[in-house]
Amino acid sequence: MSRIAYVNGRYQDMRDASVNIEDRGYQFADGIYEVCEVRGGKLVDMPRHLARLQRSLGELRIAEPMPLSALSVVMHEVVRRNRVQFGIVYLQISRGVARRDHGFPAGSVKPSVVVTARTINPAKGAENAARGIKVITVPENRWPRVDIKSTALLPNVLAKQAAREAGAYEAWYVDSDGFVTEGSSSNAWIVTKEGRVVTRPDKSGILSGITRSVLKDALEALQIRFEERAFTPEEAAGAAEAFVTAASMIVMPVVAIDGHTIGSGKPGPVALRLREQFHRFAAFS
Amino acid sequence: MSRIAYVNGRYQDMRDASVNIEDRGYQFADGIYEVCEVRGGKLVDMPRHLARLQRSLGELRIAEPMPLSALSVVMHEVVRRNRVQFGIVYLQISRGVARRDHGFPAGSVKPSVVVTARTINPAKGAENAARGIKVITVPENRWPRVDIKSTALLPNVLAKQAAREAGAYEAWYVDSDGFVTEGSSSNAWIVTKEGRVVTRPDKSGILSGITRSVLKDALEALQIRFEERAFTPEEAAGAAEAFVTAASMIVMPVVAIDGHTIGSGKPGPVALRLREQFHRFAAFS
Repeated sequence: MSRIAYVNGRYQDMRDASVNIEDRGYQFADGIYEVCEVRGGKLVDMPRHLARLQRSLGELRIAEPMPLSALSVVMHEVVRRNRVQFGIVYLQISRGVARRDHGFPAGSVKPSVVVTARTINPAKGAENAARGIKVITVPENRWPRVDIKSTALLPNVLAKQAAREAGAYEAWYVDSDGFVTEGSSSNAWIVTKEGRVVTRPDKSGILSGITRSVLKDALEALQIRFEERAFTPEEAAGAAEAFVTAASMIVMPVVAIDGHTIGSGKPGPVALRLREQFHRFAAFS
Repeated sequence: MSRIAYVNGRYQDMRDASVNIEDRGYQFADGIYEVCEVRGGKLVDMPRHLARLQRSLGELRIAEPMPLSALSVVMHEVVRRNRVQFGIVYLQISRGVARRDHGFPAGSVKPSVVVTARTINPAKGAENAARGIKVITVPENRWPRVDIKSTALLPNVLAKQAAREAGAYEAWYVDSDGFVTEGSSSNAWIVTKEGRVVTRPDKSGILSGITRSVLKDALEALQIRFEERAFTPEEAAGAAEAFVTAASMIVMPVVAIDGHTIGSGKPGPVALRLREQFHRFAAFS
């Protein structure tokens, strides 16, 4: 089956789905995006994703191209047309098409909207989770506005590629103070030997992850001790467990960092429990 | 006359010129670009632009989509088809189209090539130069790899927009040590009261500008004293002159920084002389 994308008002075959070469998303990375999990044909945690989308647009002063409720309808429709039961839906909004010039174009320029969806075999995620993934660390080299979910992802691309080439699955950024900020496309967590779950506050250095925020609710409901503070790669290497969160991975156990085995070298019980329990605390629509 | 663009092997009307929504330039800012001046229908300093292009591609490990000589032919052809006598030609190369995934796609993915050109009325540049432009300063917030001319330009977009909204034409970034790095789309220069022309070395914090490098040759040939070192906004405010360089502006006098008048508040004699003499030292093709 060929994939269907939504582009600026039209549902099209992905192969024909295109944007003008003067789309500011293409020439300036002047746009934002969201990735939502699809599970059983439903979209996971849409209200939180839409709220973050709205915040990103506001920070960049990109107009909302349509009401959030309409965006939600489009996203559901793209999932439906692609018959995605398990996978992700991707939404990108750029400032629109205008003659190339760094400053914002006139207010009459309409933002571009692109939505795609695709199936991800849940068995593959389960397999990764059963084995656990490896991470490497790389120096933080992104701009400070990582709180905006922008498409200026070139540093993330290079970090992810560095991880792959090191035989790992994800790269964790380490800031100039020696603390982990987050992964190239995920938030970073550890579980201490005392059983406390730790992740960096979303005040600086990270994107406020939706899976991260739902997991915080889950930790509270499950009465698992939780500390919101920064940690170092050294602390992670000596931790009982580690894991990452992202809409495309949910809770994914981490078993090694920079070649150092974490805990038993196998996915930890806390991470596996959180992965299993996660969707009890998620909102489906 | 409608404008013509080159996109992946085809010359097309700009309105129809498009790239796939999964072009990595669109989703990840995973691409690079060059802007060359067009003067009298000729391309200015193409060998240096192509050498820098090749370096940018190499740093990102994007394959050369065609020999540089062929790229040069395409750029000339786009200029010709658009009948540009004075203006710019823009070249963008992305890593190509692939299913969204941060890491590099398989080697078989072909990089995307886009070339556009447009006329800029030389009278407008002359007018700006006769009046001089204003700059503001903004904190440096780009990633450290600004030596790569990538399309991850969102920070530059926001800086340029901040300049506009402050009634200025350009924003100069100031690093954490208090020194000017460069403008959002130009290199920054001052002329001291002793008549020395000063610009930051291209070892860190700036893109190695082509206009900058040609101007260095010009300074030497014209026996104008030149110092390659960083300077602060305070030194700029107290300097005899200031100016910026870029392919689209050549040498553009700066008459105010953060509201402080520089020198007489009028374009300085050194900047105007360099603007006038610049093309004696440029290569035309």
